[in-house]
Amino acid sequence: MATNFIFQNTTKIYFGDNQLESLPQEVKKHGTNILITYGGGSIKKSGLLDKVKSLLENAGISVFEFGGIEPNPRHTSVNAGAKICKENKIDAVLAIGGGSVIDCTKAIAAATFYEGDAWDLVIHKAQITKALPIFTILTLSATGSEMDCGAVISNLDTNDKLGLVDPHLQPTASFLNPEITYTVSKFQTAAGSADIIAHVLDCYYFSRGHKLEMVDQVMEVVLKTVVKYAPVAIKDPTNYEARANLMWAASWALNDFLTVGIPQAPTCHCIEHELSAYYDITHGLGLAILMPCWLEYVLDDSTAADIKKFGVNVFGVDPKFSDMEGAKEALNRFRNFLYNELGLDSSLTALKIDKTNFEIMAKKACFGEVLHGYRDLTPKDVENIFEMCL
Amino acid sequence: MATNFIFQNTTKIYFGDNQLESLPQEVKKHGTNILITYGGGSIKKSGLLDKVKSLLENAGISVFEFGGIEPNPRHTSVNAGAKICKENKIDAVLAIGGGSVIDCTKAIAAATFYEGDAWDLVIHKAQITKALPIFTILTLSATGSEMDCGAVISNLDTNDKLGLVDPHLQPTASFLNPEITYTVSKFQTAAGSADIIAHVLDCYYFSRGHKLEMVDQVMEVVLKTVVKYAPVAIKDPTNYEARANLMWAASWALNDFLTVGIPQAPTCHCIEHELSAYYDITHGLGLAILMPCWLEYVLDDSTAADIKKFGVNVFGVDPKFSDMEGAKEALNRFRNFLYNELGLDSSLTALKIDKTNFEIMAKKACFGEVLHGYRDLTPKDVENIFEMCL
Repeated sequence: MATNFIFQNTTKIYFGDNQLESLPQEVKKHGTNILITYGGGSIKKSGLLDKVKSLLENAGISVFEFGGIEPNPRHTSVNAGAKICKENKIDAVLAIGGGSVIDCTKAIAAATFYEGDAWDLVIHKAQITKALPIFTILTLSATGSEMDCGAVISNLDTNDKLGLVDPHLQPTASFLNPEITYTVSKFQTAAGSADIIAHVLDCYYFSRGHKLEMVDQVMEVVLKTVVKYAPVAIKDPTNYEARANLMWAASWALNDFLTVGIPQAPTCHCIEHELSAYYDITHGLGLAILMPCWLEYVLDDSTAADIKKFGVNVFGVDPKFSDMEGAKEALNRFRNFLYNELGLDSSLTALKIDKTNFEIMAKKACFGEVLHGYRDLTPKDVENIFEMCL
Repeated sequence: MATNFIFQNTTKIYFGDNQLESLPQEVKKHGTNILITYGGGSIKKSGLLDKVKSLLENAGISVFEFGGIEPNPRHTSVNAGAKICKENKIDAVLAIGGGSVIDCTKAIAAATFYEGDAWDLVIHKAQITKALPIFTILTLSATGSEMDCGAVISNLDTNDKLGLVDPHLQPTASFLNPEITYTVSKFQTAAGSADIIAHVLDCYYFSRGHKLEMVDQVMEVVLKTVVKYAPVAIKDPTNYEARANLMWAASWALNDFLTVGIPQAPTCHCIEHELSAYYDITHGLGLAILMPCWLEYVLDDSTAADIKKFGVNVFGVDPKFSDMEGAKEALNRFRNFLYNELGLDSSLTALKIDKTNFEIMAKKACFGEVLHGYRDLTPKDVENIFEMCL
């Protein structure tokens, strides 16, 4: 069975400490006006923003700022950021933050070259034709946005949260310093780790596509890395090994190296986007609640061997179990990891979410019909999964 | 302990069958005059050359040819190829072959913009300032040259075989079709597989540098992939899974993803280059003879744990062994794999190489002084290793 794929990832990664010194020279290849974007302002308190501004300004680069980008970033923020770029002849954008800030910034980079509402680009009413060069300084290991060409943008007017994938959105260079993540809270570390796991599991580990065995094993290495080091980072936030392994694992989980040749069908991501869109919850937390229920829902004789394999190779489940028993034990171990070791909430009820919107959310997750994936799901299936999560 | 590295790999990979259809459009981004380079002519017999020429010519691209590139390619071939490029205003080069053809073609791409002898570029008497866009169609899974920016060129006048590494030599796009390697002989499959293993072992698995655990585990996945699938490809040359896994493993072994942050010190490669330079032997075969002797030579209380770990994680050696016993068992298993499973020669004597040139070769391998690496080696050490290989 042939395995066909096209792979290219052009992002330049600067990993480690003291790498920011190279930022001005990278930016100056593209111009001298830069927009720095960020979220709630923790980078002001930590002094990172001032440090980066000084570095750039000392190199003769004019710095503009756009802060206050929300978790689950809004299309209104994209429009506001793009307005600044247009008005100030910005040559490049620099996101300092996690996935939300980076995603919003990618959309700003593209919306700068579009005259209408940026939401048009998200819903493909208009095509992306160009984008400003995108730089990132990562502050949270989670989404992989620092090394992929995707972005997820929310529209609170319509309760939509949608993904936008375009080669123009590939970052030019990303700066990954594990030490910057020492101050990430236990909760955000846990939720980010669940997000990394979800990218691997959801996007391709569980897949009907044919995988090269080598790539399958690398997926398991990424999963094992998170399973080992996320609890370490939670207990010991300044543990360099833990933060460094999590940071590089996050990038690998979604930088296309692992997706090669596999039809991507991010089932849990599609379902979770409805939760975030309706309740504005943390993406990784929503995924952590959904993933075990999804796997339990699709567990039958045709999937048991795959789920058992996940348990054996990632959680050390005894291979002597039968497929079905091994799969059940895998789910036990997975839940124990997410809810005990990472300390994440295990139910939607704990987030005060009830069944009110399940029907409409399920329908939207399925785009009205069927959510194709490892197992195809109807709106009724998705509704059942939501109810298992209560 | 901080792990600092810069990673970027821009090569676009087309993996699988029917991907060549995209070749003309990729080439036409750069121009309409292309030089196709190849080796001994097996691509003529197989019909691949005619197929590629038709594809390109039907798209309005003018094709020039340069065949007969040697294994261990010579600087004289680089000069001859560059002359064709200069005289015919070539816009891009397309290597169809294994590492030797690709390496020679990379050097041609750079030498086209240099007026003197191409050897000047290899010995850094002159700097590479520019290179033609480089395309490759890979016919042998081995060197990883299809996805890195290195080339190795030989000078028979001086008995030198030297590496040239420059960002300009990074291929623009490479086409990897595992089916093309169905006709690779048992010997070349075995030697290529030894080369893949050498890249991982020699360049970074055995290293004094600090490795991220995740990356270390991915190295072991690449090694295990070769250990599993090389014997399958030798027994069953048209086994798609085996050929596909070997092909992608070869690219991963040297595309910088695994080298991140590790000081590269390719001990066996440096030593082997002397064997190839003096006796023109197949690179992978030379490596297969050298690697176990090198590890045995450096085996002591300070290295036993590392070598045992290699045995445990790659060959399934029982972890209950002591470090020293486990390391010895690892070497037994490694030798069994190379000489019994792959069927490669196990000694220099079998290649009719005697100790005549060991002293001068050892001195050259150490650049006169010390060969820095996992363990630093003096010329006397290298001479001892050569003697162990008899």
